Amino acid sequence: MSETVKQIVYSEFGDPTQVLRLEEVAREDLQDGQARAEVLRSPINPSDLIQISGNYGVRPPLPAVAGNEGIGRITEVGGDARGLSVGQLVLLPAGAGIWRQEVVASAGAFIPMPEGDVDQLSMMMVNPATAQLLLTDFVTLEAGDWVIQSAANSAVGNYVVQLAKAMGVKTVCVVRREGAVQGLLDLGADAVLVDGPDLVKRVKQATNGAKIKLALDAVAGETFGRLGESLDIGSTLVNYGAMSNEAASMQAGAMIFRDIRVRGFWLVNWFERASKEERMSVYGALTKAVAMGTLHAPIDRVFTLEEMSEAARYTWAGERTGKVLLAPNGI
Amino acid sequence: MSETVKQIVYSEFGDPTQVLRLEEVAREDLQDGQARAEVLRSPINPSDLIQISGNYGVRPPLPAVAGNEGIGRITEVGGDARGLSVGQLVLLPAGAGIWRQEVVASAGAFIPMPEGDVDQLSMMMVNPATAQLLLTDFVTLEAGDWVIQSAANSAVGNYVVQLAKAMGVKTVCVVRREGAVQGLLDLGADAVLVDGPDLVKRVKQATNGAKIKLALDAVAGETFGRLGESLDIGSTLVNYGAMSNEAASMQAGAMIFRDIRVRGFWLVNWFERASKEERMSVYGALTKAVAMGTLHAPIDRVFTLEEMSEAARYTWAGERTGKVLLAPNGI
Repeated sequence: MSETVKQIVYSEFGDPTQVLRLEEVAREDLQDGQARAEVLRSPINPSDLIQISGNYGVRPPLPAVAGNEGIGRITEVGGDARGLSVGQLVLLPAGAGIWRQEVVASAGAFIPMPEGDVDQLSMMMVNPATAQLLLTDFVTLEAGDWVIQSAANSAVGNYVVQLAKAMGVKTVCVVRREGAVQGLLDLGADAVLVDGPDLVKRVKQATNGAKIKLALDAVAGETFGRLGESLDIGSTLVNYGAMSNEAASMQAGAMIFRDIRVRGFWLVNWFERASKEERMSVYGALTKAVAMGTLHAPIDRVFTLEEMSEAARYTWAGERTGKVLLAPNGI
Repeated sequence: MSETVKQIVYSEFGDPTQVLRLEEVAREDLQDGQARAEVLRSPINPSDLIQISGNYGVRPPLPAVAGNEGIGRITEVGGDARGLSVGQLVLLPAGAGIWRQEVVASAGAFIPMPEGDVDQLSMMMVNPATAQLLLTDFVTLEAGDWVIQSAANSAVGNYVVQLAKAMGVKTVCVVRREGAVQGLLDLGADAVLVDGPDLVKRVKQATNGAKIKLALDAVAGETFGRLGESLDIGSTLVNYGAMSNEAASMQAGAMIFRDIRVRGFWLVNWFERASKEERMSVYGALTKAVAMGTLHAPIDRVFTLEEMSEAARYTWAGERTGKVLLAPNGI
């Protein structure tokens, strides 16, 4: 075993293709009660890149190891690291700086996982829970209700379609290019539309004038307003991203005359206010579904740590057909 | 008494300076149970002009008499119009088409008012209640709390300052020109700032970093976002107008990371959901305050029906120092 390990660090906030660098550091010693895991896969979430650029809701102290979630396998346990054994598949501690070859942490910070597709399990912490909470934390949806979402071909968007379908809730999916339509229809979306100035009218046609109760937006810009204007009176528009890099905009009339309510969603805030029981309830069901393969998101490409800069560029470009993952110990 | 009365009508939606016309029609006969009131004063609210332009939440059947609120005096009562007598000052029926010399309606539709300043009483129905409900219907404010508002020199803005002060709530008032600052300070505003790109920073300075709990916006555009970004985490931004004629825009980060919640307010919706008791409670207190002169809004000019087109132009121009009123039976 090598005495050094590789990791992706940044010492200043800025363009991820510029500020991230690969460094090799001495392997950490293991303390009593700690465990060591080799990192198998870690997704590059848009929020990771926003955090590196300095525009995220929290800024880590610098220098920082990048990456916020991933899956690993225990390779060593300290004296009384009860409950964990070598070979156990684990979710790595959230926000621990995951884009490195191995993570050392107290044994309790690793969450044991059932064996399964490590690509899918590596995305377990952030996106499936975001999708689930977007569907359940703002309005009460019943079978037959309609939801509209932008960025529908993102990982969260894919999860939303699958989770909504399981609830009997219908989805209007909005994407930015024709090439993303068929995949979402195949996944079970009830309508898929390419965004444009006349979106509101086309939503009405595609849904036969259904009263849409919830809109989920990760694009901002004018898409935000179009989603809001597609909603039924008194409904809720939740924003959780700004892939357009534009401010979210909406005609005041939608808020005033149609009583559209706007909320934001940030998983970090949910973690802060959710009880341990709520967290276990949400993650328990999602873990089962991901491990069984009934909840999944498409993977586009897997990069090594050496390819980090290209991986960041590729993730941000937006023409992907699925998630981008890092494989710190080889693909 | 003349056998005809003058009124302002429109037969198509469009620019109020173009589509409104003065016409003279035969005086209506009075039925049993009805009363006739001469119209003393009626405000030109921005929402009246938006309604005439066709961009309001409800569109009246055309042709329509314009105007939605005002004060009058009973000049004639039908057979059993109990409780009303000639000479009684009354609020005219809301939305009845008030920009005319007289209103005929069932006696119960007129709301008896105490004698007082008819200019002030003519604005009783819409703006004071809007201000009151903006302050009470969305968040619970306590003495010492801070509120920020745009369009602060509007009638609603003036009422907000006075009502907040009575609650012990502090106000940051945002206006579009320096000339509007002193009047608001004199009225009791705790801070008055001219809007601009660095508003959020100046709000922090002016309030010594106070945690602002509620933002009230009637401007939309980027002002909407600046107000939202001035708020404390988890606070509420209420929009009730779009004086900028622009879409409301805000950085997604304010919603996501700071949990800013956005709502709209429309008095018409409140009327639909409020119980009779709630309506009486809100209007009872406001009527007393307006009649006593402790709640008031500045008046800029009073126009006759013949000057309607100029009055509409003047109202919309935005450089006013107060409300514009119509005096259908002479100034």
